[in-house]
Formats: sequence, structure tokens, C-alpha cells
Amino acid sequence: MITRHLVIIYEELSMNAGHRPPVTVVGLGSMGSALAAALLDRGHPTTVWNRSPDKARPLVDRGARLAGTPQEAIAASPLTIACVLDYEALYTVLDPATGELAGRTLVNLTSGSPEQAQEAVKWADSHGAGYLDGAIMTTPPGVGDPAMMFLYSGSHEVFDAHRSTLASLGDPLHLGTEPGLASLYDAALLGLMWSAMTGWLHGTALVGAEGTSATAFTPVAIRWLGAVAGFLTTYAPQVDAGRYPGDDATVDVQIAAIDHLIHAAAARGIDNALPELLKAAMQKAAAAGHGQDSYASLIEVLRNPAGREA
Amino acid sequence: MITRHLVIIYEELSMNAGHRPPVTVVGLGSMGSALAAALLDRGHPTTVWNRSPDKARPLVDRGARLAGTPQEAIAASPLTIACVLDYEALYTVLDPATGELAGRTLVNLTSGSPEQAQEAVKWADSHGAGYLDGAIMTTPPGVGDPAMMFLYSGSHEVFDAHRSTLASLGDPLHLGTEPGLASLYDAALLGLMWSAMTGWLHGTALVGAEGTSATAFTPVAIRWLGAVAGFLTTYAPQVDAGRYPGDDATVDVQIAAIDHLIHAAAARGIDNALPELLKAAMQKAAAAGHGQDSYASLIEVLRNPAGREA
Repeated sequence: MITRHLVIIYEELSMNAGHRPPVTVVGLGSMGSALAAALLDRGHPTTVWNRSPDKARPLVDRGARLAGTPQEAIAASPLTIACVLDYEALYTVLDPATGELAGRTLVNLTSGSPEQAQEAVKWADSHGAGYLDGAIMTTPPGVGDPAMMFLYSGSHEVFDAHRSTLASLGDPLHLGTEPGLASLYDAALLGLMWSAMTGWLHGTALVGAEGTSATAFTPVAIRWLGAVAGFLTTYAPQVDAGRYPGDDATVDVQIAAIDHLIHAAAARGIDNALPELLKAAMQKAAAAGHGQDSYASLIEVLRNPAGREA
Repeated sequence: MITRHLVIIYEELSMNAGHRPPVTVVGLGSMGSALAAALLDRGHPTTVWNRSPDKARPLVDRGARLAGTPQEAIAASPLTIACVLDYEALYTVLDPATGELAGRTLVNLTSGSPEQAQEAVKWADSHGAGYLDGAIMTTPPGVGDPAMMFLYSGSHEVFDAHRSTLASLGDPLHLGTEPGLASLYDAALLGLMWSAMTGWLHGTALVGAEGTSATAFTPVAIRWLGAVAGFLTTYAPQVDAGRYPGDDATVDVQIAAIDHLIHAAAARGIDNALPELLKAAMQKAAAAGHGQDSYASLIEVLRNPAGREA
């Protein structure tokens, strides 16, 4: 505990003494602006660049330095964080600045595919730059909150060298050296989010048809998500083992149960495309021999959409 | 604190002195057996009945009394908890015992529709019995855990009279007097569960295609569900207000983002029916004028599947 306190005191002193490393942020959309603001808040000398410089004004008012060109921006800091529209925009902005990138590090938080991340690490490598690919698992207002996950993939050394700076943005998690991992996790987690949010909206519409408000239903739904998290913890080792004992609840039982949902929603005029699709997936799993297995067995039919399972 | 401790000591003494009220459990499938076991564990004199009496053996070994008929079972306790296959089975079992039900209370934890719950409360009323409809938001191994939600709807007086007994099964939440509410919430929450579990399985299949195990991905997914819960808390008042400001992330931005998921999953041979459906729902919301609104605006198209929205 004493050591930990001393470390914190040392970090605070370093910060107050201006010892936080300088950082450049390229791209000042709502997310890029939130990144730069979080770095300024934590005392990093911060240089910013954006195609239309007027976006930089609120950050300059808070102490950021506005670079005139991408070259000048990259040259200002050992670490540049890029968050632009897409990979095409990334290369348009950075290709003229590859000379400055040599010997420096690029952390790319632009949304893209695992394949685009794999190309980008090669591109950075060919210009002598360190590279990390990353994904921001929060909305702009959540940037700077140490509870929010920032996912990174790529070189361990590059991650370790910049970890404390990246911690100014959120909680940095290094997923592995394969550069596509951050965007693969990003896609997988967003898919979970959209599924959960749409299921919540469907349920909210259902109880709403009987006069229950969303604000009354949602705390119960959130508490229930905690129980669902427990089911995922039970099911994850089943997926890894490829065996899905249905001790707690079988696919067959859940096929019967989802009809209650479908009938109740249909009776209230609510779109049932989502529960119908979920029921069809359960039926496909049952037809593949998983009727007495747990819900986790559905991964077999998701992995083998054309029925390639033996 | 002292008062609280005295209450607990009093409850413990009452329990040890056999002062827990007697309860009858009708239906000894895996869930009914778990209910009876939890009541026995908490010291309730417990009478059980099941169509095939051999299911009662493990409970009798733990101190339960086996009734010979439903009439005898109902007569043994002021409160009967029923958990049978469906409402047809419920009436088959209880119709010969309506004489004994008069002046007693039935808590019905059988799965069914809101309409079936509404019929059951009329049926119970016509026989002079108190009635609560309920839904168990856990699997049999979770019964008895005070963290697990048991949802009830119906008379406040009946709920208050039996609340402490119901707390032996889990955390009892009273949703309101409308008898169909518990099964309506049940359907809505199970829909959220199936949506979230299927989204998790899709994501698990996606990262699994690149060698990430389910047990490595799942703790990140569960932590992310915590962030998603924060989004639901933000969106619930938007749903109630019917206004969906897209400050954090718009539907249009998410339509662009879901293509990353669809492409990444397609490249790895994974079934994309779920993300394709989610994208179609987002596009429908955008076409209805919600492109710059938050994801919560999708409830408008779920409520109005035939495009009845003005």
C-alpha cells in the first residue's frame, strides 16, 4: 500500500511538473476531440491536427497546440493517436508524413476490419514506425473514465512503452500481438451490444404495451443481465470443450418458452422478427441433435450455417 | 444495526423453534423440487405432491411430508406453491381440490402467458382463494440464492402476507396488481436473455475463428455488458419521452459500423442472420427518419412493424 501511494504521489508530481509525455491527436471528430480533451485533462502536452482546423478551437482554448500540417503534428510527439473516418482517410492524412513517423509510434483508433489493421501494421513497419491497433469501447462522453475499456493489439513492447499514456483515455487492455484482434473483438462486442439492446427494446415495447414505463422495466432488465452474465460464465467452458450439458435448461425447453414471448408480442402488435429468428436458430440446433443440450450448443449451427456439421 | 441484528436473531430463533410457516409445493419437476428443497433448507415445514410420487423421495429424505392427494396437499398449509408443466396441468391437478383452496393462497409459478394468469386469478377468486402469479428468473441451481429475482404480480395484501416465505426462494419483487405482469416481464426478460446469449455466441464464434477461446473472450464480453447496461440507463428515459437525441452514437453511424461485423463474420464462414436482421431494423429506423437519433429510436419500428408510424 505504501509503495502504491508513493507511486501515485510520484506520478502526480511528474504530472504537475509537466513530465507527462507529449501526445499528438490526428482527427478531431467527436471521438478524436474527446481523446485530446482527456489527454489535456491528465496533463499531457497535446498537439492536434484536423482537416478543418476550426474543430480544434475548443481544444486550443484548453491548452492544445494546433499543428499546421500532419507532418508538423507527427513531429511534435513520440506518440500519435489517430482517429479518423476510415482507413482511406488515415492513409490520405499520413502518407505525406511517413518521414516523420520513422522512429515514432502510431496508435490507430480508427474503426476498421482486422484485415485493414493487418495492412496498416505492414505499412507502419515499412516506414519504421511502431504501431498499435485499437478499439474504443465507449462513446465520446465515456472517454477519460478509467472504467471504460480500450482494446489494443500489436507489439507488446510498443504497448508497454505507452501504457501509462493510454491509461489517460480509459482502461487499456492488450489482447495479443495479432494486429487484427482489437477490431475483431470490437466487431464481436458491438454485435453483442446491438443484440442485447434490440432484445431490451423488444421487451420494453412488450411491457410498454401494458403501461409499464421503460424506466420501470430497465433496472429489472439490467439486474437480469447480471444473471445472464452468470450463464455466459457457465457456458464459455462448454463452448471451449465442445460439450454442452443441458442440466440447467435445454434447447427444447427454451423452444417451448419462446412461444410465450412470440404470442404475447404478436397479441400486442409488436414486430417479432428477432424472437422468430432466435426460435429458428434454436430449432436448427435441436434438428442438429442439440435438443437436450444447453443454449451454448447454438454456436455449432452459427459456425456451420450451411449444415456442414458432421 | 442493532435492531437489524435483533430481527435476524429473532428470525433464527423462530426458525429453530419451528416457527416458519408451513408451505405446500405441487409439482416436483427439476424446478418444483428446487423450490421445495429451498423451503426445507430455510426451515419451513414442507408438504409436497407430484403426479408420480417417486420424484418426492429425495425431498422426503430431507424432511418433506408427501401428501397422498392434491386435496391433502393443499389442506396441509395456508400457502401452496404450484410449479407444473402448463396451465392445463395446473387445472387438472387443482380442480378436485378447490374446496380446500378456499381461504388459502395459491402462488402459481407455472410458466404461461399474461392471459392465462388473468384467467387463473378469476378461477382462484371464484373459489375464495388468494392468488399470486409469479416467474422464476433463474435456473433450478439458482433457487434459494437471495440474489436471484422472483417476479410476482397480483394482490399487494397477498404478497405482503407471504413475502418472508417467498424470500426463502430468492429475492421477491412485486411488479403490480395486474396479474399478467409477472409473465409479461418473464417473456420480455427471456427475450433479452436469448438476444444477448445469441449475440455473445456469434461474437464468440467470430473471435474463435482466429483462435481466441470462449473463456478468454467472455470476461471481456461480460465487462462490456456492464457498459451496455449504462447505455440502457441512458436510453430508457428517451423511450419514455419518445425523443431519442443521438449525441453519443447515431443510428446512421451504427449502420456503417455493423458492416464491419457482417464482413468479418462472413469472411470466417459464420452465420450472419442475426447481424443482418439487426442491420435491417436499423435501416428501417433510419428510413423512418431516425438516422440521426440514438439506437433507442428502433423501438418506434418494433412497435409499428407495418409502418403504422405517422
